[in-house]
Amino acid sequence: MLDFDPTGLHAKLDDAKTAARALATANTAAKDSALEAIAQELLAHVDEIVAANAEDLARGRENGIGTGLLDRLTLTPQRVHALADAVLDIVAIADPVGESVRGKTLPNGVHLEQVRVPFGVVGAIYEARPNVTVDIAALALKSGNAAVLRGGSAAESTNAVLVSVIQGALVRAGLPAASVQTIDEYGRPGASALMRARGYVDLLVPRGSAQLIQTVVTESTVPVIETGAGVVHILLDASAREDWAVDIVRNAKVQRPSVCNAVETVLVHADAAARLLPPVLGALREQGVTIHADARARAIFPDAVPAVEEDWETEYMSLDLAVRVVDVLDEAIEHIRRYSTGHTESIVTNDLGNADRFLAEVDSAVVMVNASTRFTDGGEFGFGAEVGISTQKLHARGPMGLPELTSTKWLVRGSGQIRR
Amino acid sequence: MLDFDPTGLHAKLDDAKTAARALATANTAAKDSALEAIAQELLAHVDEIVAANAEDLARGRENGIGTGLLDRLTLTPQRVHALADAVLDIVAIADPVGESVRGKTLPNGVHLEQVRVPFGVVGAIYEARPNVTVDIAALALKSGNAAVLRGGSAAESTNAVLVSVIQGALVRAGLPAASVQTIDEYGRPGASALMRARGYVDLLVPRGSAQLIQTVVTESTVPVIETGAGVVHILLDASAREDWAVDIVRNAKVQRPSVCNAVETVLVHADAAARLLPPVLGALREQGVTIHADARARAIFPDAVPAVEEDWETEYMSLDLAVRVVDVLDEAIEHIRRYSTGHTESIVTNDLGNADRFLAEVDSAVVMVNASTRFTDGGEFGFGAEVGISTQKLHARGPMGLPELTSTKWLVRGSGQIRR
Repeated sequence: MLDFDPTGLHAKLDDAKTAARALATANTAAKDSALEAIAQELLAHVDEIVAANAEDLARGRENGIGTGLLDRLTLTPQRVHALADAVLDIVAIADPVGESVRGKTLPNGVHLEQVRVPFGVVGAIYEARPNVTVDIAALALKSGNAAVLRGGSAAESTNAVLVSVIQGALVRAGLPAASVQTIDEYGRPGASALMRARGYVDLLVPRGSAQLIQTVVTESTVPVIETGAGVVHILLDASAREDWAVDIVRNAKVQRPSVCNAVETVLVHADAAARLLPPVLGALREQGVTIHADARARAIFPDAVPAVEEDWETEYMSLDLAVRVVDVLDEAIEHIRRYSTGHTESIVTNDLGNADRFLAEVDSAVVMVNASTRFTDGGEFGFGAEVGISTQKLHARGPMGLPELTSTKWLVRGSGQIRR
Repeated sequence: MLDFDPTGLHAKLDDAKTAARALATANTAAKDSALEAIAQELLAHVDEIVAANAEDLARGRENGIGTGLLDRLTLTPQRVHALADAVLDIVAIADPVGESVRGKTLPNGVHLEQVRVPFGVVGAIYEARPNVTVDIAALALKSGNAAVLRGGSAAESTNAVLVSVIQGALVRAGLPAASVQTIDEYGRPGASALMRARGYVDLLVPRGSAQLIQTVVTESTVPVIETGAGVVHILLDASAREDWAVDIVRNAKVQRPSVCNAVETVLVHADAAARLLPPVLGALREQGVTIHADARARAIFPDAVPAVEEDWETEYMSLDLAVRVVDVLDEAIEHIRRYSTGHTESIVTNDLGNADRFLAEVDSAVVMVNASTRFTDGGEFGFGAEVGISTQKLHARGPMGLPELTSTKWLVRGSGQIRR
């Protein structure tokens, strides 16, 4: 890591602004050509990318980083091919820029039209996931934004080569190299400067651990979209069908436990606990899930460890599940209010009134009735790409597609009108 | 002002959260009844309000605050009536809550619907304008949000009575008193705490001077919408019609110079300067406008003071105008890029290509062709109410109506579906 040189970083941000102007007026065909060039260049440089990645992996092993992190850091030739394919998938997604959001002609003949425009410069701060480098670069490019990336020191060698390959493709396609830049070489001080680069960074997206997101949200003076953490709940209501309860909880916990839309806590109505807990939790135990249950749930399903306060707050991201018995719907909603991160909650019920109350009163990005929480996903929602899942209320909430990487502006066309 | 007591402030924020839950599920009729009750109670307490205002005015005069500020601080019986009328106007505006934004049924039968929901708790920080207290309270209420108001020490007595009157009306209408609260009694430390009340404040709107807005944007860790400052430009292109140039510039400068959509700088193409500057600036001089012009403009229109660098950066909000001659469209766009606050810019032209380039390349919330910049206004845009004019790109850009005071959530309705 070099010493922090704000001059160099500011020059990069200036270049990003200049590139953003060119991108804002680039048409879809030009942007798609650049994406195709990026996919080609990634494939043409597989060996170079994998070699740089080997340096990061060696350094990571020396520094004793965990196996999960090492796996996310690893780029095999096969994974580079998958990255190139993912870039080509973005070619197929509709370009949101220029979309007319609404419009009208005022009585005086002035015509108003609100259209989607790129943000300008989009920053991203993430950790040790070189796939995010390509992913964010491609999504930003398609939506007409310049990208400034801080991918963390653990993946610095890989990211440097990836950005260099992407820049080569951009130049070949006639777009500015500075459309995609990394600031990894400025280390943590660079990341801090990015968070405070008002007037340069129009939007900052953190991706990674809850701690990283918290730091970015707290330290930033530029606009941030908070993505992420999911302490996700499923409520099994008194009237829940047993087969749906079993299927939905198992799918939500076991299909991919390490992602944010996996369930972490199951609440069960006292009237249904004896009927539902044995089949639901039995199915989970068969899949190796550790149950952390309160005393009432353990009285019915003894093959569980006692739940402690911390269990209700934890995003396990593993084959663990917290279980609690509640007496009334209000108690369940209150539990969710207290412990949820506002990502996704689902109720399994056959009671229309309770379904409606749950939908109305639970204040999360996605609220479900009789469906697996795993559906909270840009791909499942049909967005074609996923920028992340917003758990904030400003600008975007829930799965974000390409339109969420745009702002709008009003175009006003008159013929000499003045205000009376 | 009391010493800062975080316990008391946190209790108010807790109460606001609880009130927000009740408001989120209150229907339009209930909210409209509360608005009508507020209008009635304001009229029933005119004397009390004016008496409290007299205290603030007396203190203001003692402290030597300016006449402009004193005027904005003043509530006469007539102005209280106007405030009550403004509250009734909000009854007539459509309730954005519950509006279906988009929806679809996935191939597996899962139905998705994105609906508008209130933010929850909306904070406002503003200065010495008691009308904003009523205005924001009514807009927040109609959009289902609880309001926490910090109106500044200069209007503390007036705001205390206004909030008390509003709370009386809320209780009479069956809604929680804590739907509208002031935290003026906690002074500046209270304002700072509000800016950092993550998890309590879902949206913070600063209204007032550029300095106040800057402070809120920089210090806040809660989501903020930046409103306001307008260094607004009009470009008179080589082909501009003289009558439109005269009308639009005069209207934009003179009709109401103290507002953010008034023009501050006129750029004129060199090929049209001799033709347009005498009639355009002559008309302004007749209205008492002081012209701050560059050397080339003064060579044509000598009745002007020399413009200095600071003139290009200044939001005069007065009968002053900066004028500069430019040689090409790019030079005008570059000037705007450098000095604009991104509020509103307009080109007067008969050249289609230049109009299109101006609309595409000028990166402001509102970009106009052949129209007065004074049209950038929620009322003029037909929104029925104006929450403010956003100069940021996240969430809202340009005039904000009631829908901009809402977030969304996804309602997902299934029948036992799981992810494959």
